Amino acid sequence: MTPPSTLATAQRSLGDPDISYPLWPALTRGCPRTSTDTLSYPVDVDYAYERVDTALFEPGYAARHGVPRGAGIERWAPLLPPLDAPSLGEGGTPLIEFAPGVHIKDEARNPTWSHKDRLNRCTTSAAVRAGAPGVVVASSGNHGAAAAAYAARAGLRCVVFTSTDTPPAVDAFLHAYGAVVLPVPIDHRWPLVRKVVEHCGLHPVSNLTATHTGHAYGAEGYKTIAYEIHAELGAPAAVFVPTGYGELLYGVWKGFAELQRLGVTDSVPRIFACEPAAGGPLAAAVRAGVPATTVEVGDTDAYGIDCSVGGYRGVVALRASEGRPLLLTDDEMRAAQRELAAAGLWVELSAAAGLAGLRQVGDVEGPAVCISTSSGFKDVSVGTRTSEPVDPAWDEVRRRLRASGIDA
Amino acid sequence: MTPPSTLATAQRSLGDPDISYPLWPALTRGCPRTSTDTLSYPVDVDYAYERVDTALFEPGYAARHGVPRGAGIERWAPLLPPLDAPSLGEGGTPLIEFAPGVHIKDEARNPTWSHKDRLNRCTTSAAVRAGAPGVVVASSGNHGAAAAAYAARAGLRCVVFTSTDTPPAVDAFLHAYGAVVLPVPIDHRWPLVRKVVEHCGLHPVSNLTATHTGHAYGAEGYKTIAYEIHAELGAPAAVFVPTGYGELLYGVWKGFAELQRLGVTDSVPRIFACEPAAGGPLAAAVRAGVPATTVEVGDTDAYGIDCSVGGYRGVVALRASEGRPLLLTDDEMRAAQRELAAAGLWVELSAAAGLAGLRQVGDVEGPAVCISTSSGFKDVSVGTRTSEPVDPAWDEVRRRLRASGIDA
Repeated sequence: MTPPSTLATAQRSLGDPDISYPLWPALTRGCPRTSTDTLSYPVDVDYAYERVDTALFEPGYAARHGVPRGAGIERWAPLLPPLDAPSLGEGGTPLIEFAPGVHIKDEARNPTWSHKDRLNRCTTSAAVRAGAPGVVVASSGNHGAAAAAYAARAGLRCVVFTSTDTPPAVDAFLHAYGAVVLPVPIDHRWPLVRKVVEHCGLHPVSNLTATHTGHAYGAEGYKTIAYEIHAELGAPAAVFVPTGYGELLYGVWKGFAELQRLGVTDSVPRIFACEPAAGGPLAAAVRAGVPATTVEVGDTDAYGIDCSVGGYRGVVALRASEGRPLLLTDDEMRAAQRELAAAGLWVELSAAAGLAGLRQVGDVEGPAVCISTSSGFKDVSVGTRTSEPVDPAWDEVRRRLRASGIDA
Repeated sequence: MTPPSTLATAQRSLGDPDISYPLWPALTRGCPRTSTDTLSYPVDVDYAYERVDTALFEPGYAARHGVPRGAGIERWAPLLPPLDAPSLGEGGTPLIEFAPGVHIKDEARNPTWSHKDRLNRCTTSAAVRAGAPGVVVASSGNHGAAAAAYAARAGLRCVVFTSTDTPPAVDAFLHAYGAVVLPVPIDHRWPLVRKVVEHCGLHPVSNLTATHTGHAYGAEGYKTIAYEIHAELGAPAAVFVPTGYGELLYGVWKGFAELQRLGVTDSVPRIFACEPAAGGPLAAAVRAGVPATTVEVGDTDAYGIDCSVGGYRGVVALRASEGRPLLLTDDEMRAAQRELAAAGLWVELSAAAGLAGLRQVGDVEGPAVCISTSSGFKDVSVGTRTSEPVDPAWDEVRRRLRASGIDA
């Protein structure tokens, strides 16, 4: 028995859900009809929901249908856009019960060790279908490396415009998969992405618009996080999501909303957006009551989510789930990062924003899931210091052990 | 329905399989009766095989028995030692069809991004059962960090004696989980581990003997790699294993041998040991026809597997599976590392030894699996350079793109 194929039917405007576009070509600049020069509305993917066999959500479905672990999110193919790019085995990450009622969804267990692999499986698939010679992306880390990996796997070229202050280990990561990596001043990244799209015909897999819309298919990949959480836990009371442009936030919400629409669950968790206090375009948009806005970004080490530009997806997810935006200081994220490390999970600062959000809110009534997006190897401090050698004489070693509280 | 618990019965000497010891306490210095001052024989774990329900190996078993993904290798509990330490969701890694008939088992998808998590779940469990206040380990990287993570998760202390030339990103990794990290000259590491065991009562999770024996329970964790491969592929023709002390090699062989013994498969793959040509104690032992030996180690960047000390486990696995030892130069491993990166898999040099081994052998008759043990973030070169900024003027960017073969 082979897994059913996609039931995707169209691209739907979030600016006006009555407006639909054909499924192809994938829209990479949001909804052309509802967007203006200063405010852009994204599109997402619509499906023939009435044709979804809900056995898809039963335990053992993948095994029964012979979908190997290495096929990754293909296990959810009916509710994803067509997956023309080969898999690297993305998804299927564990949910760790970190404390009673508090679960960590460990996205550092993806092929390039972040959630971005789920998105890039979908966007690279669009590039393959479009017949593009490659993809182009503006990214300071995880998104760029994931795009490079999926492009390499699909036999496509990849160009990454990155910032000039990339941490050293992340610099190696961006270069690892053979992409053309060009560090440029941050304001030049998006204009250069547009140039490369126009001049070279590369398929854009990051944003091109005034407020964030990103790729039509990207957030679909993130829905699989909701499906996976539900398979293990049912619908939790709340999900705390590290938030940059809000694509992950939206995808997680949409996944649960689909489960409710299909009658698989009767509730949708409250979704909390966890942005750095130094920026926070989604919190600013909610405060101002607008669909999306831009903000100045101050000093923060949470470089994975320190976006100046927000998007309408985040507003939709918060409103529909009765969630809200949270602003986290670096100190709050560092405390959450330490708490996770002390339980055996090493995450980059941005990835700790989810747990930091839960800690800021305090209790929630029922199970809470904090999404941890990425590995500690991507942190700004990695590779900047090396330990000094220690005198191997037992007296000196013993002194060190005692100083560390070990009974020696 | 809860998953069955362990069917482990005893510790069995590999020096003389007729010699058995009780399951507890876990032996951390090999078989006391068959070992001498210069040659040590390991022990492994025996099980009540006649009581194993082979439904354990059927697809969907974990789902039917309600074993969550976050419980990791607990899904195979009947054929593992008691798992008293909590899980970090180890195992369940994808098998990627890299080329027709060539599969990569991507162990960089574990909690600390290497195969060592499977071992440390088992050894930390022994430390918990023993009531030890912590664990102690000698390691230049993955083993130490995995021990630190599992100890932290279990609420135990961890002391890591590491080498003085740890790569900068790996230095951050070793420190991430709150372990006491002491870089000492390499020859001092094992005597200091012994001292800490004697003086502080910490449980040793690396080797203490003249030739390698390691922990009685460690290699058991690696058997789950064989079970996972078999569940997706049946028994392949050959498995290529990056080899340091030979624990991974032995565990993978033992897993397949158990499947054969239980009638789940009728063949065991040939197991190929992939050691760096700069060292290679297993190849040396096979050449000399001895159970284990030590060698001088020359210059190599494959620091994860550049062991001077071999162990008898490797000899057993090669002999029983009709496999053989392969010696790989750094150039061969680098070529395999590039080949993997070009397909979207970034691995450290040692982890590429498996594919390098297959490339050296050429064709095998039937499916081949190469185990890739760990992530590229652990490579010696990571963090040692940062890219130069690029002039963002389009003419300059275009020149760069053309120089990289992109039609701009």
